[in-house]
Amino acid sequence: MQPNTLNRSPLGRQHRLQAAKRNARVNYGQIFDKAIDRLHEEGRYRVFIDIMRNKGAFPNARCFHGHNGPKPITVWCSNDYLAMGQHPKVIEAMETALHDVGAGSGGTRNIGGNTHLHVELEHELADLHGKEGALLFTSGYVSNDATLSTLAKLLPGCIIFSDELNHASMIAGIRNAGCEKRVFRHNDMAHLEKLLAAEDIETPKVIAFESVYSMDGDVAPIHEICDLAEKYNALTYIDEVHAVGMYGKRGGGISERDEAAHRIDIIEGTLGKAFGVMGGYIAADTRVIDCIRSYAPGFIFTTSLSPVLAAGVLAAVKHLKGSSVERDAQQANAAALKAKMREAGLPVMDSVTHIVPLMVGDPVRAKKISDILLAEYGMYVQPINFPTVPRGTERLRFTPGPAHTEAMMDELTSALVEIWDRLDLELAKAA
Amino acid sequence: MQPNTLNRSPLGRQHRLQAAKRNARVNYGQIFDKAIDRLHEEGRYRVFIDIMRNKGAFPNARCFHGHNGPKPITVWCSNDYLAMGQHPKVIEAMETALHDVGAGSGGTRNIGGNTHLHVELEHELADLHGKEGALLFTSGYVSNDATLSTLAKLLPGCIIFSDELNHASMIAGIRNAGCEKRVFRHNDMAHLEKLLAAEDIETPKVIAFESVYSMDGDVAPIHEICDLAEKYNALTYIDEVHAVGMYGKRGGGISERDEAAHRIDIIEGTLGKAFGVMGGYIAADTRVIDCIRSYAPGFIFTTSLSPVLAAGVLAAVKHLKGSSVERDAQQANAAALKAKMREAGLPVMDSVTHIVPLMVGDPVRAKKISDILLAEYGMYVQPINFPTVPRGTERLRFTPGPAHTEAMMDELTSALVEIWDRLDLELAKAA
Ligand SMILES: Cc1ncc(COP(=O)(O)O)c(C=O)c1O
Ligand SMILES: Cc1ncc(COP(=O)(O)O)c(C=O)c1O
Repeated sequence: MQPNTLNRSPLGRQHRLQAAKRNARVNYGQIFDKAIDRLHEEGRYRVFIDIMRNKGAFPNARCFHGHNGPKPITVWCSNDYLAMGQHPKVIEAMETALHDVGAGSGGTRNIGGNTHLHVELEHELADLHGKEGALLFTSGYVSNDATLSTLAKLLPGCIIFSDELNHASMIAGIRNAGCEKRVFRHNDMAHLEKLLAAEDIETPKVIAFESVYSMDGDVAPIHEICDLAEKYNALTYIDEVHAVGMYGKRGGGISERDEAAHRIDIIEGTLGKAFGVMGGYIAADTRVIDCIRSYAPGFIFTTSLSPVLAAGVLAAVKHLKGSSVERDAQQANAAALKAKMREAGLPVMDSVTHIVPLMVGDPVRAKKISDILLAEYGMYVQPINFPTVPRGTERLRFTPGPAHTEAMMDELTSALVEIWDRLDLELAKAA
Repeated sequence: MQPNTLNRSPLGRQHRLQAAKRNARVNYGQIFDKAIDRLHEEGRYRVFIDIMRNKGAFPNARCFHGHNGPKPITVWCSNDYLAMGQHPKVIEAMETALHDVGAGSGGTRNIGGNTHLHVELEHELADLHGKEGALLFTSGYVSNDATLSTLAKLLPGCIIFSDELNHASMIAGIRNAGCEKRVFRHNDMAHLEKLLAAEDIETPKVIAFESVYSMDGDVAPIHEICDLAEKYNALTYIDEVHAVGMYGKRGGGISERDEAAHRIDIIEGTLGKAFGVMGGYIAADTRVIDCIRSYAPGFIFTTSLSPVLAAGVLAAVKHLKGSSVERDAQQANAAALKAKMREAGLPVMDSVTHIVPLMVGDPVRAKKISDILLAEYGMYVQPINFPTVPRGTERLRFTPGPAHTEAMMDELTSALVEIWDRLDLELAKAA
């Protein structure tokens, strides 16, 4: 049996080249092994925790490996922020679509994979943001990548102005656009203006930023960015992935809350976090939607979202447009957990949103704390390492939602204090 | 109310710059409008047909616009090739997961979004291809884009050798890799060898190709490509998107049928076509999987596949490993339809697979035929235009599956003959 190139010994029978030539051949296996070794050395080789959420019992879950305690796992790091992935309306809509339409769409949007559910969901999302149109993608990652790269290709000579903390998917889109980019210091308006002013007024410009930065929990000054966009005639692109469903009266995000949605050219969001399912989208004027729809390979050449998912999201978006119960409970619980941690002297970071980040500053210790929490306390929070956050700012990131109880928060805080003590980490009140 | 940049009139009140400066400002709206106008002019502006498949009645469907006839729509262009999107086992597995786990995964694979279903599905897919491991992505597009771009970044100085008819998602991955590429003429081994021989033996090389080319229905000479890969020490990357589930005794694709899977380094597939759901994957040695898993932003920074989808695919893959009924029926129906069309003198293209392409050679006529089929006959087939196929080779592409009946095929063939006649197109027997 002939092996593939990777498994073929460089000294194998098949290729009796002269020794010199043979030694010069690429050893692919070694290259891959070294790439993996680097991760182990830096303490950031990832092992995926094998858990299974329990519908109905969320945030509780089952765990398949790494935890044999008597208690169920309590999940503290889900981005199903409002537990909509368990909401009866969402489950029912998906069940109906599953039986009515089937499992998959069977094609791209253009070739056999467009269903009425996709069309309806796009109308619903456009309405959510007060825009003329919306466009679905298979994920938030793909919406950022496909839209930004295509936008820049349509605008000759375009420069993209990108916040330094922008998400990997925006960075990918900007990189794949192959256009010029200027990175401005995080939320630094003076720096952004300086960079904008340095370019010719005739040059097409796009300012790309997030509303809620999900690893720190801070928020962009949307109106100030729009003022600069206006002054320098730039298009604005906002990633509201960690805000849609959770901010604004109808869940339209920070741009709704701050009454700035009409000033933004393109609003991007996910269907996989507060809306509880999977997928991504943009909302914008019809002609922008029409251009991206017609020119973005990442939209055109892929099987469309399963109609089952589209149905679930439709139910989630509609529900959250009319209900603030989930949003209010999330905010209350996030505030409570922050207060409890701060009171206990834990190094909770400044966050003006629902995100509760606890600074550790070291990948090995962050993993250690997370391991103890899971194995001994049945509490699951993933350590956040490079490249998700800059090296030296490794942290634990908690996302309390409407379903977490006061008792769970108290237990979590006590557990953390005990571990902090055990590992000789510094507590603020002790300092 | 301040409008966004796109809607702001260049002569608006807000910006009273001097006339010269004002005229020099970018008119974004005009740029977008022109991009859309180009599509209209070329006759390739796309309107998505608003249909809804009927589970149980597939290939029949409902249509929301563009067809008011008394008959249901018969879908002739679905890539749910084996109707697995309607299979009771798939539907049941998805329903169970929906109630057991919930709608979405709630996180990335590393942060809260790994479930036992993902792990199991990866084992199942690895086994399908006889590989050590597999890795799930949100789509086949993303698996190609993320894997190829990351692979090339891990291999310093890498050159990718790409078949000229490779799918847009592979082209995106290669482009985004930022590495050198050499495009070889479609399935042309002499040309591929010439290009391989021209490069230094010390240069890392990847040969990227498809098994079934889905717009023509022809197949790559896998063993010959592997022979060249061996001779020139290149890695092999095969896209089996239009073959997995459909070829080989267990549905492992053309590489299984041709007993070549062990010679391929990376096998890529989709979960959205023959497996009937949505998502994508690669199968390869553990170290390749580990590298892509650890380094590919398109894998790391995105919400993982909904557990509902993972459960459905798991059922589909397991079923098709053990059952050839669907594959056999598909092959029989494809052969029958090709024979019927050929007999009727219709310009059916050479295809050695389940794909039945009918050459038209002009975008406007292809659309016209498709419009008549839908409006008058209740038969849905999408015209295939540039950029999906080269200009001048516009076509109709039929995908008969196990659920299409002999009567449906006869009706389709007669309808096409009538339309061919009506539009004064040439029939082979009339010529
Ligand atoms: C800011 C931001 N944008 C985009 C994404 C990608 O969204 P999705 O998970 O739907 O791919 C994420 C995280 O996953 C994110 O944090
Ligand atoms: C050859 C090929 N590769 C990859 C893809 C992308 O797969 P998916 O639809 O799962 O994104 C497609 C079509 O969609 C394809 O035709």
